[in-house]
Amino acid sequence: MPFIQIKVFDGVLTEEKKNEMIARVSEVVAEIEARPHPKEKLLPLTWCVIDEIPAPNWGIGGQPSSLELLKALLES
Amino acid sequence: MPFIQIKVFDGVLTEEKKNEMIARVSEVVAEIEARPHPKEKLLPLTWCVIDEIPAPNWGIGGQPSSLELLKALLES
Amino acid sequence: MPFIQIKVFDGVLTEEKKNEMIARVSEVVAEIEARPHPKEKLLPLTWCVIDEIPAPNWGIGGQPSSLELLKALLES
Amino acid sequence: MPFIQIKVFDGVLTEEKKNEMIARVSEVVAEIEARPHPKEKLLPLTWCVIDEIPAPNWGIGGQPSSLELLKALLES
Amino acid sequence: MPFIQIKVFDGVLTEEKKNEMIARVSEVVAEIEARPHPKEKLLPLTWCVIDEIPAPNWGIGGQPSSLELLKALLES
Amino acid sequence: MPFIQIKVFDGVLTEEKKNEMIARVSEVVAEIEARPHPKEKLLPLTWCVIDEIPAPNWGIGGQPSSLELLKALLES
Repeated sequence: MPFIQIKVFDGVLTEEKKNEMIARVSEVVAEIEARPHPKEKLLPLTWCVIDEIPAPNWGIGGQPSSLELLKALLES
Repeated sequence: MPFIQIKVFDGVLTEEKKNEMIARVSEVVAEIEARPHPKEKLLPLTWCVIDEIPAPNWGIGGQPSSLELLKALLES
Repeated sequence: MPFIQIKVFDGVLTEEKKNEMIARVSEVVAEIEARPHPKEKLLPLTWCVIDEIPAPNWGIGGQPSSLELLKALLES
Repeated sequence: MPFIQIKVFDGVLTEEKKNEMIARVSEVVAEIEARPHPKEKLLPLTWCVIDEIPAPNWGIGGQPSSLELLKALLES
Repeated sequence: MPFIQIKVFDGVLTEEKKNEMIARVSEVVAEIEARPHPKEKLLPLTWCVIDEIPAPNWGIGGQPSSLELLKALLES
Repeated sequence: MPFIQIKVFDGVLTEEKKNEMIARVSEVVAEIEARPHPKEKLLPLTWCVIDEIPAPNWGIGGQPSSLELLKALLES
């Protein structure tokens, strides 16, 4: 019965990336919690919600973020 | 002082349904917490927030949801 | 697929009250969201988590709360 | 490593107010948690997310809110 | 800057499982969000919090859960 | 009607620090949201909840945290 919530900046995940993130994270969580049993019984009861937050609403160190800052970080 | 948060798929609740959900859930929660006292004193301190999540951001069993899946389930 | 979270003061709900709150709130939410369909298909996909917060960790108007304040309010 | 989440009505905060809120709240939280050490080491690890909720989705006392109600309260 | 929150039943994760879950989920999320860039720059800004909920506080379909129900499901 | 939630490591805040954090953060948030009106009308409708998370449940960069790591950071 795990419930996973992932907050990311709005606009950084394509639909394809969202689907991959939901699939892989749900499987990792169900696999670890279910072990030594197989994850198949737990997976249908594993929910994963992606919560997209506008970057200017997300402060780090007291400063609002931006997609430009994230891009600069990733390319640094 | 209860604080209630209800996550639902974006687009499934009309304004009328939202109002009814806020009213009835708040009353149930205040009534049960306040008992054996009447709920009237606690109700003004009962907050209820509806959080609408786009269905494709909500994974169940590792698969993204959709309003079509929900409709199919309800009509099954 | 509704997900309900209810924050209350730690220590105000007996096990019996928790069970009643989970049952009644889940039914209200599933009934309203599913309408005009019956709630039976949606109810198994309705989750409700009670989150108990120590009253001194919960500030109202900048002042920490207490179970005594809640009791005084209900008995007023 | 504090993580702060602030839910407000959608539409009540200008970008300037959001920036000020993120800056001042993050500094207060980092200062108090870090004390007697200075806040500078903790501040970069202090995150603050503003979550804007449409007023009709936010019930108080079982009634949906509105920006008009908030305005009337502030001007009363 | 992803922030991940994972709610599980209290008592189902050993310290070892928690560490593995934090490590693997954080890596998956950072990898997908950062792509086509490597995840190394994003990983330090990826936070993951495990939130342990007592099973009787977690209702599914209006019924409180229990560790016994989870065990029965996994062994079925 | 702001609702503030502050997640910190369990064990880092004394009762005195919690009270100060609740008081000062609530005042900052109410003051900024209410401006140009005075904060007094909004403050009673400002709630602030401190959520204490065991440090080993809080991963940063895929690694579980600890109070020792926080202490080392603050003293560095």
